[in-house]
Amino acid sequence: MMINAGYLLLDTENLAGYLRGLGHWDDAPIEVREVSDGNLNRVFIASAPDGGRGLAVKQALPWVRVAGPSWPLSPDRADAEARAYRQVADVAPDVIPRLHGYDPDNHALTMEDMSDLKVLRTHLNEGGGYGDASVRIGEFSAGLAFATSDFGMPSEQRKALIAASANPELCKITEDVVLSEPYIEHEHNHWHPGLAELAAKVHADARLRTEVAALRHAFMSDAQALVHGDLHTGSIMVGTRDGAEVVRVFDPEFAFVGPVGFDLGVYWGNVLIAEARAQALGTVKDHAEQIAVSWDAFVSELRRRWPERVDTFFDDAYLDRFLRRVWTDALGFAGTEMIRRVIGYAHVGDLTTLPDPLPASRAVLLLGRALILGRDRLDGPGAIRELVDGLAVGTGAHR
Amino acid sequence: MMINAGYLLLDTENLAGYLRGLGHWDDAPIEVREVSDGNLNRVFIASAPDGGRGLAVKQALPWVRVAGPSWPLSPDRADAEARAYRQVADVAPDVIPRLHGYDPDNHALTMEDMSDLKVLRTHLNEGGGYGDASVRIGEFSAGLAFATSDFGMPSEQRKALIAASANPELCKITEDVVLSEPYIEHEHNHWHPGLAELAAKVHADARLRTEVAALRHAFMSDAQALVHGDLHTGSIMVGTRDGAEVVRVFDPEFAFVGPVGFDLGVYWGNVLIAEARAQALGTVKDHAEQIAVSWDAFVSELRRRWPERVDTFFDDAYLDRFLRRVWTDALGFAGTEMIRRVIGYAHVGDLTTLPDPLPASRAVLLLGRALILGRDRLDGPGAIRELVDGLAVGTGAHR
Repeated sequence: MMINAGYLLLDTENLAGYLRGLGHWDDAPIEVREVSDGNLNRVFIASAPDGGRGLAVKQALPWVRVAGPSWPLSPDRADAEARAYRQVADVAPDVIPRLHGYDPDNHALTMEDMSDLKVLRTHLNEGGGYGDASVRIGEFSAGLAFATSDFGMPSEQRKALIAASANPELCKITEDVVLSEPYIEHEHNHWHPGLAELAAKVHADARLRTEVAALRHAFMSDAQALVHGDLHTGSIMVGTRDGAEVVRVFDPEFAFVGPVGFDLGVYWGNVLIAEARAQALGTVKDHAEQIAVSWDAFVSELRRRWPERVDTFFDDAYLDRFLRRVWTDALGFAGTEMIRRVIGYAHVGDLTTLPDPLPASRAVLLLGRALILGRDRLDGPGAIRELVDGLAVGTGAHR
Repeated sequence: MMINAGYLLLDTENLAGYLRGLGHWDDAPIEVREVSDGNLNRVFIASAPDGGRGLAVKQALPWVRVAGPSWPLSPDRADAEARAYRQVADVAPDVIPRLHGYDPDNHALTMEDMSDLKVLRTHLNEGGGYGDASVRIGEFSAGLAFATSDFGMPSEQRKALIAASANPELCKITEDVVLSEPYIEHEHNHWHPGLAELAAKVHADARLRTEVAALRHAFMSDAQALVHGDLHTGSIMVGTRDGAEVVRVFDPEFAFVGPVGFDLGVYWGNVLIAEARAQALGTVKDHAEQIAVSWDAFVSELRRRWPERVDTFFDDAYLDRFLRRVWTDALGFAGTEMIRRVIGYAHVGDLTTLPDPLPASRAVLLLGRALILGRDRLDGPGAIRELVDGLAVGTGAHR
C-alpha cells in the first residue's frame, strides 16, 4: 500500500539507505525487520546479520497505524516524543532508551535497539515477575515530578517548559478515549458481549461520571509536572544485560505537563489488570503488591530529592499534603485506565487472551469504579490490597 | 532624569509628537499630563485644551516605576497587557477600556481616556459606595472563566492559550510579594510598629505557612482559566457617563492562565480591607455585603453560560463541585491579599491614611489568617459576614 504522506514513509526496503544517508550506519551489511506493536507508529530494527544489538527506528505516520488513514493524526507527535526523551534524559537517563538522533522532516527517531528486552505486559502475561520494574517506575515518576515541578525547577523556567511541552493532539486522545468516551455511548467503545449490562450501568452512573469529570479536568488543567502520559505496562521494557536487570520506559509521545499522579495511576491500573488475569488463571500473584512497591519508591525518591528543592517556601508539611494528592489522583486515574481497557476503545491482551475473559473483565471494571469513587478514603496500599483480595475472580463471587 | 532604556521613554514633552507620529492625534492642539499612579508604569493623558475625553498612554519602563532602575523588570510586560486586553475584549468588551493601539517597540498602549472616572479604591476611601461594581466584577470573572477554561474553549485552543499567556516575570512577583515573602522574614516587608509582635507570630505560624504554600502551588500550577491577576480595587474604575454607571477593569499586565478563584479573592481581600477602614471610621458599611453580591453574580453568570459549554462531559454536578473549589480558593487568596497589604511590601491607603491604622490593620491581618485557615469550612457569604461582624475594629475587642 503506497500512500503519499508528504514525507518518506520508511519500510523494510528503504530503511538501510535511510540510516546510511543519516550516517547512523556505515557500509557494513544490515538486516531490517518491522516490529510495529503499539497503536500509533511503525518501528523497525536494523541489525548486522551476525547478530548483536543494532538500532531501532520509530516513525510517526500521519494517521493512527492500527486504524489507517481514516483516523488522521499529525506526525508532529514525534516532535513531542523526541522532546520528551531529551527532557527525561536530563532527569532519568538510565531508564529510557538512548536517542541517537531525531529527523523532524520524516518524523523518525533513531534509538537504542531494545529487541533483546521484552515488553513488560508480554512478560507478565507469560507469567513473568516484575523484578525491579516497580521500583524503577516509582523512582522515574518521582524524579520527573521533582525536576519539572515548582519544587525542583525555577518558576520562570517552568512556565517555559509548560509552553514548550503543550501536546494538544495527543492529550485530546486521552481526554476522549480514556477520560470520557467509556462513560458515554460512543462508537469507539466495544466490550465482551457478557458485559453489556454492566457497560449500560456505567453509562448511567451519574456519580461515577462526575468523579471522572473531576479527574478529566485535573488532567486538562493541573500543570504540576512533566509526565510520560501513557505509562502502561506496554510502555515499559524489561530484561537482563550483562547479568544486570534492565528497565526501560519508552513511547513518551503523550508527554505533557499534567497531574503528577497520572503516570503512577496508569501503571497501577495495568498492574491491577494483570492481577485480575493472574487470579483468573490461578497463577502466582505479586501484582497488587507492586502498588506498594512503586508508591514507596516514589515517596522515598521525592523525599530524598526534597532538600534540594529550589523553592523552599514549600515546607515539609506541604510535601505530605502534595503526596496525599498524588496518591488520590493516581487511584482515580488507575480506575479510569482499568475501565477504558474493558469497555473503551483499546483493550489489552491481559484480558482478551484469557480462556474466559468475562470474570476478570468484570472484576477489573468494578475495581476501577471502586478506586475512582473511593479514592479520597482509600488511605494507602493496604486498603487497595483489601479491595483486590475481595475481587475473587476465580470464584465468581464478585458482584 | 534621563536614563537610556533602549527605547523612547515617553514624557509630557514628547508625547504629543509620539501620538501624532502614530496617527492617534491630528494637528489639533493637545495638552498632556502625567497621571502615573500604579507601582509599575507611567501613564499620560492627552486631551484637547477645550476639554472632552482624549487618550491615555501607558508605557512600561524597564524597571519598577516606584522603585527605580535598582529593581529591573522587563518592559515586555506591556506585551502581556496588550494581549490580555485583546483576549478580554473578546469576552467582556464593555468592562475594559478600549485599546486604540499597542506599540511593542516602545512598550506603550494607547487607550481610552478614563480620567473622568475614579479608581474604586479612592472612591471607597472617600466614602463612596460600590454601585454596580461588584456585580460587574462577578460577571467579568465568570465570563473570563467560562470563555478561557475547558468548559468554554476547545481543548486544543486552550493549550495554545496557556502557552501564549505565559507571564513568568509578573507571576513571579505575585509568587514572591503576595504568596511567600509576608510569611517569612524578608527585606521587602514592613509594618506599623504596633504590629511587630503580630508579624513575628505570622512568621512563626507553621500551619498558616503550609496553607499558603498550598495556595501558592495552586497559583503556580492550576491552569484553569485566564485571570486578570491583580484585580484589587485599584485596578477598577467607576463613574457615570451619559447618566449610566460605568465600571472598567484595567491594568491586566499580570494576566495569565491560573486558578479561577484568584481574581475574586484579590477583590474580596480589598473589599474586606475597605470594611475594616469603614469600621474604624464608624462610617456606613456595605463592604462585606459585596462578597455575596459579586459571588452571586459570578455563580449566576457561570450557570447562565454553562449550557453553551463546548465540553458537555462536564456535567451539572461537576459545575457545583468546581464552584465550591473556586469559592474555597477565592477565600484563601483573599486572605493572602489582606495579609500582604498589612505586613508585606505594597500597603494600601485604605489603612495607611486612617488616623490610627493599628486596630484596622490588626483586624485585617487576623481576618486574612482566619480566611486562609478556615476556607474549607466557611461555606458561604453568610459565614464571612459573621467573621466580619466579629472584627469589632472600633471597639478594640478583637484579639
